[in-house]
Amino acid sequence: MNHFFKVKSLEEVMAMAGEFSPVDTEKIPVSESFSRVLGADLVAKQDMPGFRRATMDGYAVEASSTFGASESGPAWLEIAGTILMGDIPDFILKLGQAVQISTGGMLPEGADSVVMVEHTQLVDEHSVEIYKSVAPLQHVIDSSEDFAKEEVVLSKGAFIRPQEEGLAAGLGFSRIDAYKIPKVGIISTGDEIIPIEADPVPGKIRDINSYTLSGFIREAHAIPVLFGIIKDDPNALKNAVEKALEETDMVLISGGSSVGTRDYTVEVLSGLPDTDILVHGMSVSPGKPTILARAGKKPVWGLPGQVVSAMVVLKIVVIPFLDRLKGLDSLERAIRVPAKLTRNVSSAQGRRDFVRVKLSKKDGRIQAKPILGKSGLIRTMIHANGLLEIGDHVEGLEKGTDVDIILL
Amino acid sequence: MNHFFKVKSLEEVMAMAGEFSPVDTEKIPVSESFSRVLGADLVAKQDMPGFRRATMDGYAVEASSTFGASESGPAWLEIAGTILMGDIPDFILKLGQAVQISTGGMLPEGADSVVMVEHTQLVDEHSVEIYKSVAPLQHVIDSSEDFAKEEVVLSKGAFIRPQEEGLAAGLGFSRIDAYKIPKVGIISTGDEIIPIEADPVPGKIRDINSYTLSGFIREAHAIPVLFGIIKDDPNALKNAVEKALEETDMVLISGGSSVGTRDYTVEVLSGLPDTDILVHGMSVSPGKPTILARAGKKPVWGLPGQVVSAMVVLKIVVIPFLDRLKGLDSLERAIRVPAKLTRNVSSAQGRRDFVRVKLSKKDGRIQAKPILGKSGLIRTMIHANGLLEIGDHVEGLEKGTDVDIILL
Repeated sequence: MNHFFKVKSLEEVMAMAGEFSPVDTEKIPVSESFSRVLGADLVAKQDMPGFRRATMDGYAVEASSTFGASESGPAWLEIAGTILMGDIPDFILKLGQAVQISTGGMLPEGADSVVMVEHTQLVDEHSVEIYKSVAPLQHVIDSSEDFAKEEVVLSKGAFIRPQEEGLAAGLGFSRIDAYKIPKVGIISTGDEIIPIEADPVPGKIRDINSYTLSGFIREAHAIPVLFGIIKDDPNALKNAVEKALEETDMVLISGGSSVGTRDYTVEVLSGLPDTDILVHGMSVSPGKPTILARAGKKPVWGLPGQVVSAMVVLKIVVIPFLDRLKGLDSLERAIRVPAKLTRNVSSAQGRRDFVRVKLSKKDGRIQAKPILGKSGLIRTMIHANGLLEIGDHVEGLEKGTDVDIILL
Repeated sequence: MNHFFKVKSLEEVMAMAGEFSPVDTEKIPVSESFSRVLGADLVAKQDMPGFRRATMDGYAVEASSTFGASESGPAWLEIAGTILMGDIPDFILKLGQAVQISTGGMLPEGADSVVMVEHTQLVDEHSVEIYKSVAPLQHVIDSSEDFAKEEVVLSKGAFIRPQEEGLAAGLGFSRIDAYKIPKVGIISTGDEIIPIEADPVPGKIRDINSYTLSGFIREAHAIPVLFGIIKDDPNALKNAVEKALEETDMVLISGGSSVGTRDYTVEVLSGLPDTDILVHGMSVSPGKPTILARAGKKPVWGLPGQVVSAMVVLKIVVIPFLDRLKGLDSLERAIRVPAKLTRNVSSAQGRRDFVRVKLSKKDGRIQAKPILGKSGLIRTMIHANGLLEIGDHVEGLEKGTDVDIILL
């Protein structure tokens, strides 16, 4: 069977993420939920904070007791006691009364606001002068002001940041539903690739891609599983891919995807049961010889062997598919950083170019300096901290152009 | 002993990071090095790639054999054989000869460039026509072009991204020196705080800060260690802090840092051996009642109890200290995202304000919408994805102002 490059656009490739389904969900302790994806809507089981709470140290009052109070004409209130932290006040505050309260304390019934201690003066143990009036609900958090009972506070598919972890804990969810952490199998191919422990020999190079790819998978909060280096032999590759498909949720094969004499990736993938080749070549540079197949329900990628090309394709194309597997509800990309281009950059029409850049700050503005160099040089990715995307119909960008940079 | 607030500026507090030292280093497998900090310079033990390598499929030649070649007047070269991937060519290529080579293959002695297969036509098994000339070193990576032997390729204190992990692997470092991962102890205080598993009772709230703080510590690639909820009792707090100092590299105490009736943090810290209170209050909002002490060689923080204040202080002030402990060679802050402010924001002079904002894209521009709300409401941090810093001498910012946003 002959396979010719049927080159797809970046948008066509990205749209295929929808053909794959998220992994299963599981119950996890909320203390381990940072960086996970919520597997079900989280609904508040009660109001939060659940009672009227002071946000300042001072005196809880009914606001109208303070109306008109000023430095020159303070209000004089009777002290009804002190509220201890964590206590439930067992009395009803009356008009003309005040009760000492600390930040976080519970207001008694009848009180609707707190006068800051700085605006008061103790007269004696029974009375206090108020120098500034407060409005109802001033310096308090009301019972359901943060979240109300029955409210959907977080939606299925939400990424759990520290604040979402804290919110779930605060609402009493000591365990939550989360999508499992996808496992990503990584296979390096090529007769010229040797293990990193091996001594270097002319003609051979050490396996870099297994490590860069696994780093990016970790960065994306998934689990890399290395399946080692496979020689340019279709049977060996077939066995490795089958093993990786059994044990992981997505497989990356690096090397072996250009039209060369020893490129078996497409042949091997075509021979697997229930497998379609979805992409064989895309109009993206670097990254043209990328392959994507659906094997059963799992994506299998053939990534370019060149170190930079493999990293760019992973970051730009593969990670959004991983986000889909993780259950993230949106494939919206991360925010790009606006910057000024420091020099002219050329680009070919009819393909999407990704140019490595170094972002830095100069005169209070962020500038993007293109890092030139072959896509076989990892040095260029060490110097870069961003990628500049240049559209299919753009021939190049001039120095000084405003651009948006994907952070690396 | 009485402690009054001696309010310090943000810059004064940040400068104190230099008073602390990084944690120790250890040897780790390079496969676990992502997100770690390099503990010693990495010096190349040999050239990389170490031989002259093809970057295209085609024919390796001496460039001068192709000079003047064109579609109408091709150069005619003798085929000297085929180089297999990973092999060392055992012959010297002569002028007028070409040898088949694949991307990644090793050029024979005498060859200095590669003609892309697209610019050639096989005449018979012994000869090939070349339609385009190549320059010396075109479509090859030279022996030391990526890195040269003895070169410092990564410096002590570098953060290890996926590309640095790959570079170290490619240079044969299967184990590298890295700073240990700092452990951060987290103590929640307050008689009103109950465990997240407890049923809510008026007057009490569940422990949110332990979870938000631990999420941020994980996000910063360190290890949170929870020491539970401590009642407002100096002895209990002293015991907990001593235990945390024994087991971790930095301690966070949340709550108990405002000037209230039950605020023992400073008293307890002052009573520890070899301990200085470095900061008691800073001119930052939210975050004014922040405490920093040096206990032995370790930083101990008293963070505000309000959920938002605790998060902002952690993100803005504590994380740079953690970076210092991690051995990062620079306290340079992460890149901020330029955006347009969507409405007026007021601010007080004489303090640094951090305003929660929601970044979004509109008409191709990033806009920052201030999220209003009390610093006791976690809801505001759920809606926010950035922080806007407003300088000490600024009274407020007008709608439409260009601002730089710290990502949350």
